[in-house]
Amino acid sequence: LAGGPGFGGQVRISTVDSINKLGEYFSKFPGIGPRQSKRFVYYLLRQRKESVDELITLLKKLKEDTKICASCSRYFPSSEIGLCSICADRNRSNETLMVVEKDIDVDNIERSGVFTGKYFVLGGIVSPLDKNPGRKIRIEELKDLIKKKAKNNTLREIIMALSANPDGEETTDYVVQAISPLLSENKTKISRLGRGLSTGSELEYSDTETIKNAFARRT
Amino acid sequence: LAGGPGFGGQVRISTVDSINKLGEYFSKFPGIGPRQSKRFVYYLLRQRKESVDELITLLKKLKEDTKICASCSRYFPSSEIGLCSICADRNRSNETLMVVEKDIDVDNIERSGVFTGKYFVLGGIVSPLDKNPGRKIRIEELKDLIKKKAKNNTLREIIMALSANPDGEETTDYVVQAISPLLSENKTKISRLGRGLSTGSELEYSDTETIKNAFARRT
Amino acid sequence: LAGGPGFGGQVRISTVDSINKLGEYFSKFPGIGPRQSKRFVYYLLRQRKESVDELITLLKKLKEDTKICASCSRYFPSSEIGLCSICADRNRSNETLMVVEKDIDVDNIERSGVFTGKYFVLGGIVSPLDKNPGRKIRIEELKDLIKKKAKNNTLREIIMALSANPDGEETTDYVVQAISPLLSENKTKISRLGRGLSTGSELEYSDTETIKNAFARRT
Amino acid sequence: LAGGPGFGGQVRISTVDSINKLGEYFSKFPGIGPRQSKRFVYYLLRQRKESVDELITLLKKLKEDTKICASCSRYFPSSEIGLCSICADRNRSNETLMVVEKDIDVDNIERSGVFTGKYFVLGGIVSPLDKNPGRKIRIEELKDLIKKKAKNNTLREIIMALSANPDGEETTDYVVQAISPLLSENKTKISRLGRGLSTGSELEYSDTETIKNAFARRT
Repeated sequence: LAGGPGFGGQVRISTVDSINKLGEYFSKFPGIGPRQSKRFVYYLLRQRKESVDELITLLKKLKEDTKICASCSRYFPSSEIGLCSICADRNRSNETLMVVEKDIDVDNIERSGVFTGKYFVLGGIVSPLDKNPGRKIRIEELKDLIKKKAKNNTLREIIMALSANPDGEETTDYVVQAISPLLSENKTKISRLGRGLSTGSELEYSDTETIKNAFARRT
Repeated sequence: LAGGPGFGGQVRISTVDSINKLGEYFSKFPGIGPRQSKRFVYYLLRQRKESVDELITLLKKLKEDTKICASCSRYFPSSEIGLCSICADRNRSNETLMVVEKDIDVDNIERSGVFTGKYFVLGGIVSPLDKNPGRKIRIEELKDLIKKKAKNNTLREIIMALSANPDGEETTDYVVQAISPLLSENKTKISRLGRGLSTGSELEYSDTETIKNAFARRT
Repeated sequence: LAGGPGFGGQVRISTVDSINKLGEYFSKFPGIGPRQSKRFVYYLLRQRKESVDELITLLKKLKEDTKICASCSRYFPSSEIGLCSICADRNRSNETLMVVEKDIDVDNIERSGVFTGKYFVLGGIVSPLDKNPGRKIRIEELKDLIKKKAKNNTLREIIMALSANPDGEETTDYVVQAISPLLSENKTKISRLGRGLSTGSELEYSDTETIKNAFARRT
Repeated sequence: LAGGPGFGGQVRISTVDSINKLGEYFSKFPGIGPRQSKRFVYYLLRQRKESVDELITLLKKLKEDTKICASCSRYFPSSEIGLCSICADRNRSNETLMVVEKDIDVDNIERSGVFTGKYFVLGGIVSPLDKNPGRKIRIEELKDLIKKKAKNNTLREIIMALSANPDGEETTDYVVQAISPLLSENKTKISRLGRGLSTGSELEYSDTETIKNAFARRT
């Protein structure tokens, strides 16, 4: 759309474009609509040039400085040699592998400090209508990792840690079906995160599924 | 405030009162503010006399037709002889007793169809600041029930089924402390509803407590 | 549904009914769903008998103590002789008549203290799909009132004070069309509440209609 | 925090920094918290390099391609010569000047198509506690513009178009006080956007201020 040299009259359009196009870009950010994305643009316009330059530098560095871990598929600093800090950590067990949807889930689970094994990031979710679910998640990478670990004979448990909603269930079922043939049942078991009352749940408002699980897994 | 006979000038006030007082009454209903309670009054004013009479009849019958079960403390029809329909049901086990906060919790758990034992309704919640917690819940009635069941040697498990929030935890702790001395540990155990991911929980937004429980109780 | 004499086995049902039926009754209150209505019932069950009796007394008095003003159609104490306190107030002007949807609107406008004329309560709203709109609002009563006031030659202005939404506009149009033939244009004008920025409106989020009105009626 | 040359061990930190720092940057965007800002970062990480490069290009162009209009202080394409498209438009009247808080307000008012004069963007809001309000808004620029227009003897009306909330009122009062001495009352009047019922307002829930204005400005 930008007017090139010789199309003087259209240059004006090309610049309005730079404001509108940036607005459009931000409107694709998760959870952002067209109005808020426009506010982002005006926010940036009000900043000093140095501040926008800082953002540009951070964005340039983001891809340069980041690579995907060959083992767990997490993003990690490209300056590090080998695997990401979690996969490279010798204090973490290789016996358990937790399968999650996205990087930010790893962040949240790490904050809880409860898990000391390794992760694998699927990078997405499968839904019942997907014709080719394998394209939406890193299922081949997961299978390769499991084959490798099976060779080393170290893997004792794979923990499916997806969200407790229909898409999460669907993805769990898909993954379990895909990896089960690779595992000898008596060596590696597949588990799922426990269902029950999450913090703040009130009995009066809990659904049947949650009550069933909370009852079955009482302690 | 109502003017009696001979205070003609105040009779006017007494009637405005009947609208305002009814508004005040409704404003004490759970979750209702002064504005909505006023809307209730105008709603009733717009109804035909027969409809308001029906409400009056239902309210009259409510207390008359309802009594508290001598065993579980639930409300139930006073026309029934003996205990409430759940306590009187011979198909329900006497080996498990589920302790809940309120009647509506029983309704919700029954809807799930998962539990086939008996209930006890505490009728309230204890909070850390209560000086005399025993007054806010039916702790003596619960103790009496347990003593009686202990005599019959039937009780195998008491399931604490309170909400997964600080008040629920506090109440559970208070009750457990009060009833433990009445139980011989190897005959009756005390359990709590399982904690974990409730339906709809997303890993990204789950708190540490929920993640810990979901991890510990994976299946 | 209640079991009569001789149907002993069904008496039990008739009482469960009294709890459920009361729940159903409350679920028709404005803004109340089935769950909250059940909470109302249990709330009442937890109250002392004297408290429920007080509610019954207030409900009995509500209809008895209240009548509809023959002039404005507001509810007012039946102990008062003649018209409601606003219509009977000699300090209030008969030259302006404000037409509102419901009693609670009168309450709110009175709180503002801005209007010193008389009211008429339509008792409802007309929507575009109504086949017989005249049945849903007190249009005949309004026409009678206007004819009477026209005779006395006192009415200078009729203020349409309905909500600024499609149903409010529709009702205003319907009423204006119905009453216009009764008015001689040079004696009584029909006005509508001013449109513009309401308290809290931000320019960024205002709709076109509001901006147009705020611009046209700048002061 | 970034490790410089020779501090090999800290290079790792410097890259984690690029993810975290970008998250921090986004968390300062209007309406964005730390969690959502992190989701933005992971969103960008999942995009192809070309897409992030596009964002970088748009950001580079944003400042380069944009300048502030010497007349109204709006942002506009730097490729345009002279004033912004609105100020340069000969079909728009110079007799009315609308004073708004921010660029996005101009966008919204233009969408309504109701105003055909010129704008001035204050660039901020004054609040009662500000010690030096003149620093937060472009008051000197506005005064210069008005002096210039006063010389040309063209300005008939200044429309204060700020939000209908306390900060908006405060700013309007501050600006009116600052510019009044520059205007000869019989030539240029200062007006404010009309207050009243905005679209969707219901009488039952309207505040006293809104009712007063809607009544006073009935039409």
